[in-house]
Amino acid sequence: MDEFIRNAWYPLAWSRDISQSLTQRRILGQLVVLYRKASGTVVALDDACPHRLAPLSMGRLKDDNIECGYHGLTFDCSGQCIRIPGQPVIPPNARVRAYPIVENMGLAWIWMGDPALADPSKVFDLPQYHDANWSAVEGDALEIGCHYLNLADNLCDPAHVSFVHLSTLGNSASEDIPVHSEKQGDTFLTWRWILDAPAIPLFQKFGNFAGNVDRWHYYHYTPPCIAMVDFGSAPTGTGAPDGERSNSLQIFACHFITPVDAERCIDHWLFVKNFQTDEATTQAMIGQFRTAFDEDKTILEAIHLNEKEPRNTRPVRIAIDASPMRMRRAVDKIIETEKSFAQSGGANAA
Amino acid sequence: MDEFIRNAWYPLAWSRDISQSLTQRRILGQLVVLYRKASGTVVALDDACPHRLAPLSMGRLKDDNIECGYHGLTFDCSGQCIRIPGQPVIPPNARVRAYPIVENMGLAWIWMGDPALADPSKVFDLPQYHDANWSAVEGDALEIGCHYLNLADNLCDPAHVSFVHLSTLGNSASEDIPVHSEKQGDTFLTWRWILDAPAIPLFQKFGNFAGNVDRWHYYHYTPPCIAMVDFGSAPTGTGAPDGERSNSLQIFACHFITPVDAERCIDHWLFVKNFQTDEATTQAMIGQFRTAFDEDKTILEAIHLNEKEPRNTRPVRIAIDASPMRMRRAVDKIIETEKSFAQSGGANAA
Amino acid sequence: MDEFIRNAWYPLAWSRDISQSLTQRRILGQLVVLYRKASGTVVALDDACPHRLAPLSMGRLKDDNIECGYHGLTFDCSGQCIRIPGQPVIPPNARVRAYPIVENMGLAWIWMGDPALADPSKVFDLPQYHDANWSAVEGDALEIGCHYLNLADNLCDPAHVSFVHLSTLGNSASEDIPVHSEKQGDTFLTWRWILDAPAIPLFQKFGNFAGNVDRWHYYHYTPPCIAMVDFGSAPTGTGAPDGERSNSLQIFACHFITPVDAERCIDHWLFVKNFQTDEATTQAMIGQFRTAFDEDKTILEAIHLNEKEPRNTRPVRIAIDASPMRMRRAVDKIIETEKSFAQSGGANAA
Repeated sequence: MDEFIRNAWYPLAWSRDISQSLTQRRILGQLVVLYRKASGTVVALDDACPHRLAPLSMGRLKDDNIECGYHGLTFDCSGQCIRIPGQPVIPPNARVRAYPIVENMGLAWIWMGDPALADPSKVFDLPQYHDANWSAVEGDALEIGCHYLNLADNLCDPAHVSFVHLSTLGNSASEDIPVHSEKQGDTFLTWRWILDAPAIPLFQKFGNFAGNVDRWHYYHYTPPCIAMVDFGSAPTGTGAPDGERSNSLQIFACHFITPVDAERCIDHWLFVKNFQTDEATTQAMIGQFRTAFDEDKTILEAIHLNEKEPRNTRPVRIAIDASPMRMRRAVDKIIETEKSFAQSGGANAA
Repeated sequence: MDEFIRNAWYPLAWSRDISQSLTQRRILGQLVVLYRKASGTVVALDDACPHRLAPLSMGRLKDDNIECGYHGLTFDCSGQCIRIPGQPVIPPNARVRAYPIVENMGLAWIWMGDPALADPSKVFDLPQYHDANWSAVEGDALEIGCHYLNLADNLCDPAHVSFVHLSTLGNSASEDIPVHSEKQGDTFLTWRWILDAPAIPLFQKFGNFAGNVDRWHYYHYTPPCIAMVDFGSAPTGTGAPDGERSNSLQIFACHFITPVDAERCIDHWLFVKNFQTDEATTQAMIGQFRTAFDEDKTILEAIHLNEKEPRNTRPVRIAIDASPMRMRRAVDKIIETEKSFAQSGGANAA
Repeated sequence: MDEFIRNAWYPLAWSRDISQSLTQRRILGQLVVLYRKASGTVVALDDACPHRLAPLSMGRLKDDNIECGYHGLTFDCSGQCIRIPGQPVIPPNARVRAYPIVENMGLAWIWMGDPALADPSKVFDLPQYHDANWSAVEGDALEIGCHYLNLADNLCDPAHVSFVHLSTLGNSASEDIPVHSEKQGDTFLTWRWILDAPAIPLFQKFGNFAGNVDRWHYYHYTPPCIAMVDFGSAPTGTGAPDGERSNSLQIFACHFITPVDAERCIDHWLFVKNFQTDEATTQAMIGQFRTAFDEDKTILEAIHLNEKEPRNTRPVRIAIDASPMRMRRAVDKIIETEKSFAQSGGANAA
């Protein structure tokens, strides 16, 4: 699997990590150079001078333009070469590709597909992120040595929590509870409720539940790169399963996935919660999530390596795979559609 | 060369290294998970859950069964899945392959071939290992970065001792003495006698020879993985070459070879000697062997790399190659026989 | 690109690094063992015993011969096997290839092609290296992770100096000055003059120019491995552009290139100057060159990696590429000529 959906807004980097200096990122197997203009706007270009292929990220920022570090060819923010030292004429192909970028939710999002289809209003947004009654906390850029769809599988799969995240996000009370799934628009929703059970370690630490709770895990995954896990707990019998959440602790854990190449992805994660915490508690919660997502990383990387091993048997599929399998078929179909669209001339055709 | 003889008992691990916890080994290019049951019996299974391919060795031992660390699928010692959390039905293909294991001479031996042919009585044994008049000393699991047949070449080859092991097992007295070889049943025997010469460094350190000795090196190699070097010395003129060994120091150095894959093997070595030593002397002898086998490792790894280099010339074969060449042809023939047997239906046919 | 010109004297190692001990080098993708005889002559042989392919460089020097460390086969300086322990007969193919070697300008030069064509008088020489009025200073063996022709491009290219070497060999005064080029015999000459401009940092440090200077950069490159950069400065208006160099500081910077394989090369560099310096100043000048050539290494290695990346666009060629492009075509033609010559029987034909 080394093909990617191209017409999508992908997370490229945390906004906090982008400044008026050149930096390199890899996404969908390609290298881009990234920087912020004096005005604050973010620029992303192919990271190779079309002359000798020196990485532009090794060059110099001159005003808002990049001067190549090898022979001084200079490119503006649109990727157009505007200077070739020693010669007055600039050949028409002396340009690099520039990618549309928008910033939202603390991240710069890049459009690697047909620029004519890049609609900034389509970038993912979670309204609560901007809501003063909620509290948003930025996490890390966690690199995982696996194909991004294996991480996507994991994010269509509440069942793994009972076995992978015993010290943080899950406990054994949920082991045998089946999951449900349905497709809602472009989103694959997978969920389950665990009723009248002890709170998970995270809420035992940071909640104040006296007794058992009703808890939910709703996994929303929208291909290719948006996952949002809505989970929370309320005292048992206070009506949470019927929609009454005023007594609940609720967290939206977002995972915005950067497919680096076929072997690696980056999980840009953050969470938005319906309760305030002091700084020390916030840091402790970040620590809990870091522990949990490192557990995912460990198992996903082991699986990635095992997938390259010789096999005696064919994979077994079980009930909880319904959602990831449906998701995989949808991704294949999107890629196929993009390809036929591109072959028929793309957005510029007809 | 990436094909292996399959119908054989291969050393997998020292018994001392196997406990009631999960550990991973690679053999014949395949990963297996290894553990000891409460009863003491050793279990080996393919190390991949057939669901998502998570390594079972990253799971948890629950009684004598393995629970996968990703979704809790549980496998018994026969490799049968006995639990899938969240669903009552277990698909018939939810199983992993289990491999026959026997323990002998301090090692667990695995059968990677047709289980119907696995006869525990055929595992290699050296009677002196169990004889109270002899003394057995376990060595290491020495990983060598070469194809196991290059190590096997070395173990059909007493001549290298004069040049590789000058500080331990050989000296220059033997440089020009030809080797003899013959096939005895399935075993390739290669040997030479060095008469009336100074003792080798090992026996100068740990023997008490006043003058010159008659010494012998008998290399027994039985494909694919059993090598036993019978070597020793007796005072010159006391009749050792005619079979009188009562005055001799004699050592059986065993090399039990694990082909890890086409690029690596493990030499599980031990030795059995006809004389007792105190602990300090035993450790010093282990040190001498360790030095010697590291010398083999160094040269075998260099050859392994050089075999991948472009060549101007074809290899030269000399007199001492008769035994390794015959051995190589026999191995090729066994592999071919196994393949035709497998194609005709294996042990279950007819 | 993994083909090399073979009929040429290539630098193999600094003479200072060759002694009466065995050492290994890789050139044109091949491993050779290198040592100095008692008489001082340098010997180079293929670094693999033709028996089991053990590297001869892991063997022992016995007088001027090499004894293989595995089974004692012994080879003389012509590569002929002169001893096989344990057998009297030496098969006719028991030999390794020996390569012609000459020493000049502090380096051992090897001939990897048809030995019948190896003419020691054709090894590169710079007369000033031996001239008492000039001063020669040896530099390093700088390994660069790129194809040697990318380094050769760089050495047909004075223009990069204005952007890569701002702290040492260039300054911005030259940015927009075009380069000239012509082929002189087998040599590709590329040059430019920068008139009435501040001295470059190197000459600001080590020269005594009161005002502006006229400076020149003449890049001489003779495929496959000889580059000599003639550069210098004289006070503006003292006639340097017309040939009057008596007031000038002049340096010949030599780069003798060893193609290690398709991924690496070694730049053996030295310089010869028309002025004397004390030891501390000489060391400081070496430091300046080291800084400059490390800057080339950094950019050449980044380009080498970028050349393996997927590309959206075709390379752009600009005016300064005329010389490297012509050089590349000439190299291709030499390789093709050598191939047809070899196919028609080589120097031994007709």
